[in-house]
Amino acid sequence: MKLASLKHRRDGKLLVVSKDLSRAVLVVDIAATLQSALDDWQQAEPKLLAVSEQLNAGNCDDSFPFNPAECAAPLPRSYHWADGSAYVTHVELVRKARGAELPASFWEDPLVYMGASDAFIGPHDDIEVESEEWGIDFEAEVVVITDDVPAGTRADRASAHIKLIGLVNDVSLRNLIPGELGKQFGFYQSKPWTSFTPVLVTPDELGDAWDGSKLHLPLRATLNEELIGSPNAGIDMTFDFPTLISHCAKSRSLMAGTVIGSGTVSNVGSESGSCCLAEVRCLETIANGKPSTPFMSFGDRIEIEMRDSDDQTIFGKIDQVVVRYTPPV
Amino acid sequence: MKLASLKHRRDGKLLVVSKDLSRAVLVVDIAATLQSALDDWQQAEPKLLAVSEQLNAGNCDDSFPFNPAECAAPLPRSYHWADGSAYVTHVELVRKARGAELPASFWEDPLVYMGASDAFIGPHDDIEVESEEWGIDFEAEVVVITDDVPAGTRADRASAHIKLIGLVNDVSLRNLIPGELGKQFGFYQSKPWTSFTPVLVTPDELGDAWDGSKLHLPLRATLNEELIGSPNAGIDMTFDFPTLISHCAKSRSLMAGTVIGSGTVSNVGSESGSCCLAEVRCLETIANGKPSTPFMSFGDRIEIEMRDSDDQTIFGKIDQVVVRYTPPV
Repeated sequence: MKLASLKHRRDGKLLVVSKDLSRAVLVVDIAATLQSALDDWQQAEPKLLAVSEQLNAGNCDDSFPFNPAECAAPLPRSYHWADGSAYVTHVELVRKARGAELPASFWEDPLVYMGASDAFIGPHDDIEVESEEWGIDFEAEVVVITDDVPAGTRADRASAHIKLIGLVNDVSLRNLIPGELGKQFGFYQSKPWTSFTPVLVTPDELGDAWDGSKLHLPLRATLNEELIGSPNAGIDMTFDFPTLISHCAKSRSLMAGTVIGSGTVSNVGSESGSCCLAEVRCLETIANGKPSTPFMSFGDRIEIEMRDSDDQTIFGKIDQVVVRYTPPV
Repeated sequence: MKLASLKHRRDGKLLVVSKDLSRAVLVVDIAATLQSALDDWQQAEPKLLAVSEQLNAGNCDDSFPFNPAECAAPLPRSYHWADGSAYVTHVELVRKARGAELPASFWEDPLVYMGASDAFIGPHDDIEVESEEWGIDFEAEVVVITDDVPAGTRADRASAHIKLIGLVNDVSLRNLIPGELGKQFGFYQSKPWTSFTPVLVTPDELGDAWDGSKLHLPLRATLNEELIGSPNAGIDMTFDFPTLISHCAKSRSLMAGTVIGSGTVSNVGSESGSCCLAEVRCLETIANGKPSTPFMSFGDRIEIEMRDSDDQTIFGKIDQVVVRYTPPV
């Protein structure tokens, strides 16, 4: 089953979307919004699945052409967005580029920070930033959405809490990061927006590519029509999603609709390229002593997607342009 | 106007509460939940105010006795909880106790971290923690709730976005903090729960004590019926609320219902005591070389409240007991 949200007020209107992303149907009579579906998933899921089956069989009279440009993020706002940095090879590379050692504990204890969940943006929404001086970057990631996870849930019980899977662009302002990390309180101003693919999908839609813990397919990040990278999200993920969920739930419960992110997907050696410009620049620094790829400029276009083994898009495409934002005077 | 939420499913049922906290009336016909009122505050506020006036005049037939023990947090879950550390004297003290210098920038650039907003707990709810070894502490703070704040809003325009004010207990697990700060990604497991006073109030309820930026009254924290501290929240607040809001909105908008916290209230010299045990222990360490006050144990009771110049409680009382939590096997 594939789910999306048509733009409408703050929380959108819930849509079931066909497997090939060609058709959609409003299901607001089952659940007005994706959050309300997740709040009562046991009730909502079978009803939504029934609509999905009808739609995929071509037996849905109310369906209409699916247009990702009319979509908000599938979950336009969420109560919890915990973003990991689960591909430790990426963290190691960033450290190496600045001549710093990676603490050994980073391979054993997940890095997770809390992201801004009140303002997720849609797959075709502009990325509004006030200044290019802030060092605008994308980060292509895989995310999972959970139901209610009790505090203290162990990793071996966490996979069952994963209800939906998607991709995000965790927009990052690289030049604001050193100051924030230096204060030790974590990212805040440096992580302004998170954009989502048009649809989230249930794990069964992924077939063998989803093993309950990781998503074994390349994640493609394309900047101004040039492929920057397509590392495989199933390779070199040091902490899988159940481990991240268990980490997040160590001292408290997670409420339905919690979004857990993988962090920038990265493979050792970066032979398939990178899922963010920071990594590209780190590789350049290690090779040449300094970076040559700039961060993003106003007008730059970033596309993020994942295709299945038949080269069909799974989640649809994040397709966004960076634009200048003018604050109120 | 004073607002609360009766426990009911995930988001509670919105109540208007009388000024003296003796009576309440359900206002679900105006807005089912506090979040829905905040989502459309311009529409909701005058209607809620009209009910509040009737209630305070004794002209509300549907009113009933107000019982804080039946309340959830006024906003049982929120899309954004940004907690500052605005009393820099507290941060300086913590550093001094461990022999570390405070970076000069800490006096100029606010410290803010993102807290867990998906699971706020009610004023009388138990604080469930798995292990006393985690170093259980309370932090008494002042919070404000905003409407929609555009990205780039300057501090001199931010006060108008403050719609409601209250108190919280930012439960902290002190022994999990050093490891998390060492990773530079900020607090996560070390900040499990945030509990709220029974009611939030509009700024006008505070009279002269609210100057648009700070709340000039003592904040009382009482542990097992012993007053631990009553520092004045209007004194030594290095970064006032409009400054915190502007900091949080630097690179993105904040959505209606955003909760912004002051951090542990603290006065230079701590003559009126402290609003968390960590500060008590730091003072002991500075005086005697080591702390003598333990962190909280199972069964400990924490009360947090603020009284006006007539010694009347403004927000009602946070009154909670720490209990052992047993995770699922």
